[in-house]
Formats: sequence, structure tokens, C-alpha cells
Amino acid sequence: MTRDCSFLEALDLADDQISFADGRRESHATDFGTEQNDGSGVLPDAVVWPECTDDVSAVLAAATDRGVPVTPYAAGTGLEGNAVPTHGGISLDLTRMDDVVDYRPDDVQIDVGPGIIGSDVDEYVAGDGLFFPPLPSSGDISTIGGMIATDASGMQTVRYGEVADWVLSLEAVLADGTVVQTGSRAVKTSSGYNLTDLIVGSEGTLAVVTEATLELAGRPEQIRGGRAFFETLDDAAEAVFDAVRTDVGVARIELVDGVSATMANEYLGSDLPDAPMVFLEFHANHGIEEEIDLCRAIFEDHGVARFEMSDDDDEMDALWRARGELAYAVATYDPALEPLHPGDVTVPISSYPTVVRETKRLADEYDLLVPCFGHAGDGNLHYSVLVDPDDSAQLERGERLYREIVELAIELGGTATGEHGIGQGKREYLEPEHGAGAVEAMRTIKRALDPNDTLNPGKIFPETADGKRLRDSEQ
Amino acid sequence: MTRDCSFLEALDLADDQISFADGRRESHATDFGTEQNDGSGVLPDAVVWPECTDDVSAVLAAATDRGVPVTPYAAGTGLEGNAVPTHGGISLDLTRMDDVVDYRPDDVQIDVGPGIIGSDVDEYVAGDGLFFPPLPSSGDISTIGGMIATDASGMQTVRYGEVADWVLSLEAVLADGTVVQTGSRAVKTSSGYNLTDLIVGSEGTLAVVTEATLELAGRPEQIRGGRAFFETLDDAAEAVFDAVRTDVGVARIELVDGVSATMANEYLGSDLPDAPMVFLEFHANHGIEEEIDLCRAIFEDHGVARFEMSDDDDEMDALWRARGELAYAVATYDPALEPLHPGDVTVPISSYPTVVRETKRLADEYDLLVPCFGHAGDGNLHYSVLVDPDDSAQLERGERLYREIVELAIELGGTATGEHGIGQGKREYLEPEHGAGAVEAMRTIKRALDPNDTLNPGKIFPETADGKRLRDSEQ
Repeated sequence: MTRDCSFLEALDLADDQISFADGRRESHATDFGTEQNDGSGVLPDAVVWPECTDDVSAVLAAATDRGVPVTPYAAGTGLEGNAVPTHGGISLDLTRMDDVVDYRPDDVQIDVGPGIIGSDVDEYVAGDGLFFPPLPSSGDISTIGGMIATDASGMQTVRYGEVADWVLSLEAVLADGTVVQTGSRAVKTSSGYNLTDLIVGSEGTLAVVTEATLELAGRPEQIRGGRAFFETLDDAAEAVFDAVRTDVGVARIELVDGVSATMANEYLGSDLPDAPMVFLEFHANHGIEEEIDLCRAIFEDHGVARFEMSDDDDEMDALWRARGELAYAVATYDPALEPLHPGDVTVPISSYPTVVRETKRLADEYDLLVPCFGHAGDGNLHYSVLVDPDDSAQLERGERLYREIVELAIELGGTATGEHGIGQGKREYLEPEHGAGAVEAMRTIKRALDPNDTLNPGKIFPETADGKRLRDSEQ
Repeated sequence: MTRDCSFLEALDLADDQISFADGRRESHATDFGTEQNDGSGVLPDAVVWPECTDDVSAVLAAATDRGVPVTPYAAGTGLEGNAVPTHGGISLDLTRMDDVVDYRPDDVQIDVGPGIIGSDVDEYVAGDGLFFPPLPSSGDISTIGGMIATDASGMQTVRYGEVADWVLSLEAVLADGTVVQTGSRAVKTSSGYNLTDLIVGSEGTLAVVTEATLELAGRPEQIRGGRAFFETLDDAAEAVFDAVRTDVGVARIELVDGVSATMANEYLGSDLPDAPMVFLEFHANHGIEEEIDLCRAIFEDHGVARFEMSDDDDEMDALWRARGELAYAVATYDPALEPLHPGDVTVPISSYPTVVRETKRLADEYDLLVPCFGHAGDGNLHYSVLVDPDDSAQLERGERLYREIVELAIELGGTATGEHGIGQGKREYLEPEHGAGAVEAMRTIKRALDPNDTLNPGKIFPETADGKRLRDSEQ
């Protein structure tokens, strides 16, 4: 269905802020999970690049008047089709709103546009010894707006929390064009409803963020990085659980299985043992050696085979390199195999060994290659089910394994998606995870704030899985 | 207006779960700020003590059907009339739902009923070296449910954050009786809307919390407490700002002015100098002496007159005693004087010296006694405007001073209420703080989730200041 977007030309926008060109529309219909999500994605009818809050407001007000969907877009690095338009309309590309609007180092706060790249924030404040702690692994290509949309998190979340923990205040535009300011620049407030945290993680379905006030942290005085090798994946997972339970001062604690290590070796030409590994980084202002010793002792209880640490930046980078390149190593390992569905599950830390063990058991049972890695300290697991897409039996087993792990995570009190949102890819798990009552409360909020279903229709809610918009389901 | 609550007798509740007695109704029409808030408070028509989630659900469903307001109540320690019924109906007393439902030390999590007293949680988990960090100063008399309702915070918030930061998941009942489960037991999730943080701080206007999953923290290995005296309040406030900006490892940093010190001396028979003081507590696993030295050096830059620290529990208690008793010392200082409006304001830390300075300047200009203290590290200030209620000119000047400080806090990017909610007392500041757009978004959410305005009507929203319910304002 084509939406008439010619009304855009009557708005106060420059020529280079609007495009109806095929190339532009196509580049706004993909994300990093597109191969998995393109079944329901369609081209937007137009792409608009707002340059200020008024532009966003004008586009939203006009689109809502006309029943035209608007899907916010930025770097396109999502995994669940979060920013891929499923109902055409307008792709609202926020990458030009990438300014540092205000920087207040005395308050350890920065106000930025949604289009700014995460690592650019870090670079901007580095001179004052500050950084933005919850950056995801894609922090050097993803935008702050995208991170807010999915409530992203990353390697340092085990110590510093997720993006929501670092967003103090938002300027955002509602579906009808109303500009709202949420939260406070005070570090705490108990005034009114917490609209900030309602908008964070709502994947552009409730509002378009046009400015964010982020909190920053001071760089720790001591940083040490390294890695540890284990005999079995089970040992590694139990060691991580024990270290987190003991609250050792890790800022990163990443699990990588032996299958992934093999793939990393092929990709990087490295010679890692084909053994389960845990990558570590410690942050402290004092006593980092004691924390490392504590962690080493815990790991020794779990039979660690090798424990390597460094405080030299280049050496740390070398130790960590395999972890950084892992997603690419897995994706390119065997041209005949494709990973089924990206994304992650996350469970309470005590259940982490269970979910890791079960993933490997199912991989054996179904005779599938399933490299695993993840931000283990948060109970986070990325598991890539590799299948030959032409082998329908293998495909079916792969889908079954993928689903069984999501269902297990939910059963263990965890979540179907720890850091990538629901998007299109995980809609069917919303209700199993939250229950019918909570999902209906979410729908009620969506309908109240966006009665025309203008904002990013087709995402999050399960009834939109067949391509319907949320309001259609009521008719 | 009397509401007919006889329908309660038809519900599946025991006799001792319902009362229509005057004494019970009166005891549920007060809070710690009642003297200031009782103008618009009225008696509930009935008090109900639910003992399980089903009880709450049954009462809410029946009350919503009949248009009868329900105001959640527990310890009654609020300051802004948050739990004082303004429209009669049912006071829903949650104090019997005070169980520890489940405790999972391996996940550092505990599930509790809303009626449990904060310090009982601490006691329950102390054997495992754990604690619940965001407890407010009233933690030994206030309930977890009340803390969740106002998104409370306390002395340790400067290091550990507010209550919202420690609530992972809620079971809550919506106005129509629907039971919802929010959030996840995984420490991070990006699945669906964040209903948890929408309910936290909503003061019982969106849902009644029936169970909460709280995160806990490990007790630090090193704790040192003490206090510092300054020549001027300005020096003290600047010293706090500098210490927070430098990120010294304080877990508590409390400002107390000389006027408050005088009052504490009278109340406690102590002999503190009538000088501005900063109370401090440091938490660390390593290097606490270095952090204390760093703080001392910063305080010396600001002319600290005395800096006293201890690692002995009894000594620390003695050093801190004046801070703990301060609210009572101020309230009882002069029987002829009454404090105008309790509560607090909170500002970005760089503005803390400004708001402290301005409070004292206005106290001089208006010739009023205004003792000040607060969780300075958060930018939090409690200022008690003491007036003779029979002196109308003084009363008028006091009201003006009170209002001017709230308005200044908002102007500085802060909040009218950092930790006590809006309740009845701060409704008029909701819109100046958040703007019309954000307040209308809050109203939209309230109307969508509670269309009959059953839950705690008359709170938070400014149009309810004249005693109307939210839905009345639409008619």
C-alpha cells in the first residue's frame, strides 16, 4: 500500500530534507537484522531528515492528521527490525540532529541530539576524564537515539547499568506534534509520572526523542583487562555466576564458547585454544589487584586453565580482539550457513549456567552449530543458530532450538530480549513474557498517546505480526 | 460527600479486614505532613486491610464499578498528603501484606509485600552481607510500598541511587482489578514498555503494588563516618559541590546549617558549634583512607574548620546523632512557631550553592527563621520555614519564601520534590516544572489506565487542587 506523502512538500523543509528516491527509500528499509526481518518490512514512501525539533513536530502533526505512519530511523544498526518500516509512510531519519547542545561537566551531564554517534559523546567528554558508560558494542556506529529507543546496553552494563540508567531527561515529540520535556536535571526527582523511562525502550512507538540529557561517569583510575580459559563451558558459566555473586569489581565479563573461538581463529588468523573463554576488564580507583586476585581465586575454584591479565592498552586490546570481532566471525564462518535470528536472551545470573548448558545440549541433540557468547555478567546470551537455509529439516530444527531457548529464558524469570528491543522479531514473545494483563496495559498506553497509530506501527505488539497496525486489531 | 461502601461486606473478606469505625477512618486520614495538608483531606468512608493480591483485585474491581475512590495507605509517613484521602471512599491499608515472599541471595534479589517496613528487609538479608541501599531516613517506619509510591530516596542515594533504581519487577493491580506483572528478574531487559518505572513514583494513582522484586547490594568492606564544620554555609555548600564533582567515594554527604545545629543542641542537649556542618559516610572495598584524604583536601580548599572521622560504630553514631534527630529538633524548637510545608527541592549539583545561598538571603530579607539541611550530594535541600501561624504578615512572607525557593529550584533545572512525591502539597508546581505538554501526557496515561479515577483521586494533578477528581475537570 502506497501512502501519499506529497503533503511533506508543503511543510517548511528544505529540498534536501525530503526524498522520494528509490535508493534512499531502500536504504531506510534495512537494519543489521534485515536478512532475518525482511519478510514483513516494506519500503517507506518518503524519507525525511529533520534538522530541529520543530521539523519533527511539523512532520508528526501532519502525518497524524493524514493517517500516515512515521518510523524513526538513524544508524540502522538494530537487530530486530525496530526501525524498518512495515507499513510504508515516512522514514524519519534523525542523523542530522547530531549536535552536542550543551555540556555541563560540573554536573557531569551532556545534552545531545538523538543522531549523535555514541562514541562521539565519549570523545567529546574524554578531556574531562568522563565517559558514557552504557555504550553497546556497536557504540562507534550506533546513535544515542537508537540506544534510547531500545534501552540498549553493552559490555560495561554489569557494572554501570543500561542506557535507561544514564538518561536524566528527554525532549520528545508525541504523535500529534506536541513537544514534551520529561524528567529533570536534578539527579533525583519524585515529581509526576516517569515519562523518561516510559519513552526509553519504547522503540519510537510513543514519541520521537529530539534531545537527551545524559549523565556521565568519571573514568576509573585503574583499568586492567584480560581473559581466562576453561576446560568446559559449564565451568566457565559457573565461574561467571560465582564471580558476579561475589561482586568482584569487574566492569566487563564476557563469555565465549569454544565454537566461537574456532570461528574467531579462522576470521582473525589467531591461534586461540578451541576452549571456552571469559574476557574480563576490571575498573577501580583503588585495590584493583585485590579484586583481580579475588576473581582469579574464584575462577580457580572452577578449574580455570589459564588466567591472563594486562594493564597495557595494546596488550589488553590484543587479549580482547577475538571478543570484539566475534559477531563478524560468526556471520562469515561458513558461506553455506546462515545465522537464524540475531538478538539475545537474558536471565537472572543464577540461571546463567542452566541456559548455557541447555543451549549446548540442544545443539547436540539437534545436530546444529550454535556458537554462543554474551555479556555473561548480566546473564546475557547471544546464541547464533547456524543453518543451511536450503535444508528445510535443519531449518525447522534450528527454529525449534531458537524458540526453546527464548521460552526457557522466560520460564527462568528472564527476558526474550535483553538489549535489542522487541521490534518485529520478538513480538510473539511479548505476551508469554509479560502476561496478557501487562501487555494490555502497554496497548492502552500506546492507544492513549498515539490513537492514530502513527508512530512506528507494526512493532512490539503481537497482534501486529501479520502486518496490521495496532488500531486495525480493534476493528 | 459520603460514599456508600456497604458493597465491601459482600466481598470475600473477613470481618477484621473491613472497618467503618470513626477511629480507624481518622487514623487513615493523616500523614506526617497532615498539619500542612489537612485542608483538603477528608475521612475515608471505610478502611480495608487486604491480605493478598486477590483481596486488592476484588476491592478495586468492585470500587471501580461503583465509582468509589480507593486510596492506598500504609505507614502514613508521607509528607505531601500522598496517602490522605481527599474524596472519601476506601482507604486500602496494605500493612498486612508484609511478607518476604521469596529471597534469592544468589541473584541478590528479594520479593516482598508492599507492607513490609524498609529496615525489616535490611534485617532479613543482613546475614548474607546484603542490604537495600536506597532506604529513606524514615526507613525504620516506612513501608516498601510507600517508598515505591513516591520513588523515595535517602542519605545513601548520592552513591546508590533512588528506590526506582532498585526495583526490578512489580506485581500490581490496575483500577479495574487486573493483576499485572511488570519488568523481569533479569537485571536488564528491553522487552516492551517499562511499566515498572511508570508505576514507581505514581503515588498509587495508576496501580496498587502488591509485590515488589527488589535488588540488593553487598555491604562494603570499609565504612567510615564523620563530620566537618565550616565557617560559612556557603563554604560548606561549595565544598559539597566540589567533592561530588570530584567523585570522592562518599555514600552519604549531608549538609546542616548553623540554625539547625542550634536547634539540635536544644533538642539533644548537645554542644555542637552553631556552625554549618557536613556529615559524611564513606563506603569502599579498598582505599577508603585515600578517599577520605581526597575529601579532606577538597574541604580544606573551602576552609573547613574541623574534620572528624571514625571507624568505630558507636563513635560514628555519636558524630551522626544530630543529623538523625534533626527533623524532630526543628519541629519542636519553638512551640510558637510552626514549619510551613514539609518536603524538599532538588537541583543539579552545580546549582546547590546557589539555592542554599538564596534560601539564607531570603530568610534574612524576610526576617524569618529557616533551618536548612538535606542530602546535599544529590543537590537536595529541606528548608523549614518557621512562622507564627497567628501572625498573618509573617505567614504571608513565609509562604512567599517557600514558593520562591521551589520556583528557583525549577528555574535551575531541578525539581519541586526530590523524594516525597507531589501528593496534594506540590500539585501547583507540576506544570511549571514539566510544562503543559508533559503534564497532559501524564493525564492521558492516567485517564487511559484509570478512566473512572478510582485510584487516589485528587493527587498529583493541579486541576484537582480544588478538590475535584481528575475526570470532573473534563466535564
